Amino acid sequence: MINKLMKQIEKLDAPVVVGLDPQLSFIPDFLMKKAFSEKGETLEGAAEALWQFNKVLIDNIWDLIPAVKPQVAMYERFGVPGMVAYQKTIDYCHEKGLVVIGDVKRGDIGSTSAAYADGHLGKVTVGSRVFAPFDEDFATVNPYLGSDGIDPFIKVCQEEKKGIFVLVKTSNPSSGEFQDRVIDGRPLYEWVGEKVAQWGSTCMGDSYSYVGAVVGATYPKMGEVLRQIMPHTLILVPGYGAQGGKASDLAPYFNKDGLGAIVNSSRGIIAAWKKEPYLGRFGEEGFGDAARQATVDMIEDLKTVPKG
Amino acid sequence: MINKLMKQIEKLDAPVVVGLDPQLSFIPDFLMKKAFSEKGETLEGAAEALWQFNKVLIDNIWDLIPAVKPQVAMYERFGVPGMVAYQKTIDYCHEKGLVVIGDVKRGDIGSTSAAYADGHLGKVTVGSRVFAPFDEDFATVNPYLGSDGIDPFIKVCQEEKKGIFVLVKTSNPSSGEFQDRVIDGRPLYEWVGEKVAQWGSTCMGDSYSYVGAVVGATYPKMGEVLRQIMPHTLILVPGYGAQGGKASDLAPYFNKDGLGAIVNSSRGIIAAWKKEPYLGRFGEEGFGDAARQATVDMIEDLKTVPKG
Repeated sequence: MINKLMKQIEKLDAPVVVGLDPQLSFIPDFLMKKAFSEKGETLEGAAEALWQFNKVLIDNIWDLIPAVKPQVAMYERFGVPGMVAYQKTIDYCHEKGLVVIGDVKRGDIGSTSAAYADGHLGKVTVGSRVFAPFDEDFATVNPYLGSDGIDPFIKVCQEEKKGIFVLVKTSNPSSGEFQDRVIDGRPLYEWVGEKVAQWGSTCMGDSYSYVGAVVGATYPKMGEVLRQIMPHTLILVPGYGAQGGKASDLAPYFNKDGLGAIVNSSRGIIAAWKKEPYLGRFGEEGFGDAARQATVDMIEDLKTVPKG
Repeated sequence: MINKLMKQIEKLDAPVVVGLDPQLSFIPDFLMKKAFSEKGETLEGAAEALWQFNKVLIDNIWDLIPAVKPQVAMYERFGVPGMVAYQKTIDYCHEKGLVVIGDVKRGDIGSTSAAYADGHLGKVTVGSRVFAPFDEDFATVNPYLGSDGIDPFIKVCQEEKKGIFVLVKTSNPSSGEFQDRVIDGRPLYEWVGEKVAQWGSTCMGDSYSYVGAVVGATYPKMGEVLRQIMPHTLILVPGYGAQGGKASDLAPYFNKDGLGAIVNSSRGIIAAWKKEPYLGRFGEEGFGDAARQATVDMIEDLKTVPKG
């Protein structure tokens, strides 16, 4: 799957992942009304709105980008019906040939991480039958519990040729509270980065590992150091756009081969119709067109990043 | 909810939480067959088996214990149908008056943590109606992203009078890889513990905070230090039983009031029928009786812990 992802990035010349992180406030009224008329003002109705919103977005952008990253929290917010919308979104993205990165940030002790790995990336045996439950291609994973929590994911990645992105340095303002604390002369995120490189060396694709890392666009100097610590690691870069990261900040995240990073934008794309410079240009009904234009513009913007 | 939990612990003289972490291998054949005959060898069939298993367990132990802790990974493993079983389990435990600690270990950047907090502890507005989706009473939370990731949970806890347990020192063997690393002379878990005490001071119940901590039974010396750093924090203690923690290790986790800790056992209770000293005593059909006996024995065992 890492090979497929790298090939799609190269083919499209677009190191871009769109975060499918819908909030009800992003969804145009006409679509909310349609969902409520079908399913009522219920959790099912809200979930239907999320799914219908996503479907239009995907229909408008699938050919431009290698991957999507649905943020499961936005679906979990609506309970079990929300998880149905999450599943439909994954399945539909697969139909369109997109790589799906489940932004689940799971992580627990060994046997529990194994259950998460089974459910999100792997398979489960039920009687005489085998199922792939959520079936994302990649999942994001939290490293706080150490190797015990990561190893079960790596095992499933090796079996299924899928991948993970381990949180190393997150994009949020308070990420430094623990991640930047200095241990033996180096910040915690560097130690985590070293572990990611080690974990990754046990499951290499052609040029990059199945074990990637999350490093926020909002910390480019740290990105530069981490790029060196993890030379064969694909870096998933959140924080571009709405969170303040700019194309001019992104050069350090790439390798000399022009690859090595995939940049996420969520509301900058999916809520483009409500924001400048797209506001009013496409109308409510054209929210998918606005998302397409924002995706095109992001891809162009990233072409200005000096790589290598 | 922290007040309810503390009262139930005192009333029952049982600082015990049972982890509802079912695996198919824990479930007797007759129950698997029943579930498969109703729902087929499908994810729905597996989920039905989890739920039927839990229901019998709950019916057998609800009057002995203050709280249960379903581990969501064991349900997520079976996709959306698994989440249906998770929801049924929560709802049924509430019917029985049990406090429900959702062991979800969520944590993300601000707006995403807010979505998790809404879905698990809070409410969502859909059109003109309001819903409480998963509606656990407490949730476990991962601190790696710092205050941004915790604050949205605290906000919901204040509104809903619910609570969280923040991972401080986990029970697994590799928890030390990052958690024990020394920063300015003190291990990371102590710094996290200090933050937990700070966060907790903003939302106090009568004697303990809505913000609790997870500290594994397998590290009693660290538990002793953390008890002092977080005097008003209820400590959720995993790792007793199957993971190796013993009653004799638990004294440091309690305060002089005899309270301050709640000890979890999962497979030691729910799979008791398959394990010594219960193996063969109750038979397959008596798995609920075995769980009850194991719960009684655990409560008695914990009475041997010198408190205060």
